[in-house]
Amino acid sequence: MFQRVALIGIGLIGSSISHAMRRRGLAREIVGYARTPATRATAVRLGLISQAFESAADAAAGADLIILCSPVGVYGAIAQEIAPRLARGAIVTDVGSVKGAVVRDVGPHIPDGVHFVPGHPIAGTEYSGPESGFATLFDNRWCILTPPDGTDAAATGRLRALWEAMGSNVEIMTPEHHDMVLAITSHVPHLIAFNIVNTAAHLGRVTDSEVIKFSAGGFRDFTRIASSDPTMWRDVFLNNREAVIEMLGRFAEDLSHLQRAIRYGDGDTLFRLFTEAREVRKGVIQAGQDTAAPDFGRGGGMTPASKA
Amino acid sequence: MFQRVALIGIGLIGSSISHAMRRRGLAREIVGYARTPATRATAVRLGLISQAFESAADAAAGADLIILCSPVGVYGAIAQEIAPRLARGAIVTDVGSVKGAVVRDVGPHIPDGVHFVPGHPIAGTEYSGPESGFATLFDNRWCILTPPDGTDAAATGRLRALWEAMGSNVEIMTPEHHDMVLAITSHVPHLIAFNIVNTAAHLGRVTDSEVIKFSAGGFRDFTRIASSDPTMWRDVFLNNREAVIEMLGRFAEDLSHLQRAIRYGDGDTLFRLFTEAREVRKGVIQAGQDTAAPDFGRGGGMTPASKA
Repeated sequence: MFQRVALIGIGLIGSSISHAMRRRGLAREIVGYARTPATRATAVRLGLISQAFESAADAAAGADLIILCSPVGVYGAIAQEIAPRLARGAIVTDVGSVKGAVVRDVGPHIPDGVHFVPGHPIAGTEYSGPESGFATLFDNRWCILTPPDGTDAAATGRLRALWEAMGSNVEIMTPEHHDMVLAITSHVPHLIAFNIVNTAAHLGRVTDSEVIKFSAGGFRDFTRIASSDPTMWRDVFLNNREAVIEMLGRFAEDLSHLQRAIRYGDGDTLFRLFTEAREVRKGVIQAGQDTAAPDFGRGGGMTPASKA
Repeated sequence: MFQRVALIGIGLIGSSISHAMRRRGLAREIVGYARTPATRATAVRLGLISQAFESAADAAAGADLIILCSPVGVYGAIAQEIAPRLARGAIVTDVGSVKGAVVRDVGPHIPDGVHFVPGHPIAGTEYSGPESGFATLFDNRWCILTPPDGTDAAATGRLRALWEAMGSNVEIMTPEHHDMVLAITSHVPHLIAFNIVNTAAHLGRVTDSEVIKFSAGGFRDFTRIASSDPTMWRDVFLNNREAVIEMLGRFAEDLSHLQRAIRYGDGDTLFRLFTEAREVRKGVIQAGQDTAAPDFGRGGGMTPASKA
């Protein structure tokens, strides 16, 4: 499908893309750049890339597909660096969790004759690094593409075909709408998970040891979400400020409503709101975006080799 | 260990207790009461109880261990009803998620010569009903006992031995401390999960279909928690009002702090707080209260027979 794919950044998503591409033979060659020598060495050792470069520009040179897989905060600098080396006709894409800021930061650097098609696979785990990837991460998950106005339709089509070949369903929307949708389905959930874990850690009257021992009552699921990569998430929040703050406002308003029902003993309101929330779960299961296993996710699953 | 155990209420926890007791032969006979004829019939059909009674008092009569497994909101009425039929020397316990209110509602009805030892196994899934239980639910989980002052030490000891035989570790604390610990490790996490699911469901600018399709970004884990039994959770919040409202206040304060860091672009604060949250996760894994499977819980696991 592609002759030479350059991965710029090789963490959970970059390594999973390599696994998923090699599973189906979608690239003749996969090369890459990573910031640290350790990651470059690991990526070569695991066969994720056939060649590691010490600069993003060297990795991107001669590639017909360049995928930015680093934290979105460094996209602008990378785009500026690789721009002069991009081959005519190449496609530049990314996997960042925000899209408006990516169009803003990367778009201006892309030279004429190179196609820029931002993307975001809605898939992940709480693990980071080149050893955490696996080939099935994108299976039956959605990938959102947000081509700016005037993007070459053939380039968008090739990227759609690539994601479908890696197991995903593809949807196309504007960057602005993407950022609004993800604010509520991903960014705010992560923020409140980070937040409650820290609230719990700083209670004087309940010890850390107690919080951990009795975490099976619900808290442990938040700790899992809150163990995601801090750098990636810092950049997400800095780059989707407006949508996140709007959604947080709604969340806080609704939480005050629940808190007031608790304070005044309004059991009917609590029951009604809890019942409505339960219904949404059925939709998630029916859409194949989760399984019905009743164990709060304590079962088996795909363990990366390094942690098996 | 016990001659005749009476389960008052046979949902997820009641049915799991039956499985766990029968796994190790801890009771000569298990009988029970459930509010609906359908649950009674299912419990007998599945062998969870050898005999179903239409009244809690009839079920409790002659039992040497009575376990209240219904929503805590009806404990007071049940205690009043069963009190005259309790055998001298019997132990009454419960599995409710709040303990101060249980001591308040049940304690006064317990006759002299009967031992009242409130308890709370910190274990569960998002499923409800007699078909959702399984024998391993309590394995390596904690069970908290909150015997009021003056409780017979031998009775507390027998209950401790029972929970240990069902696979749990046991800790003893005051009802007030229990309610504070559980407010942060279980009650508030559930409340904010219910809340964000409802916030998402009522957005005009993001459709329900989009929320569900793109839920793999984090939201789906909240929908799982938010699909827990609405009646049980209504009663929890109505009966642990003060601790929940205190913890919600702290949570909201901390969330405002994060929101402010986002608004003013303070990446250092975000990075620091996210890194701290990640550390808590390590403690949960090390304490054996979760597994390190990197699939956000999408793996296999213990599926109840009825849903296999």
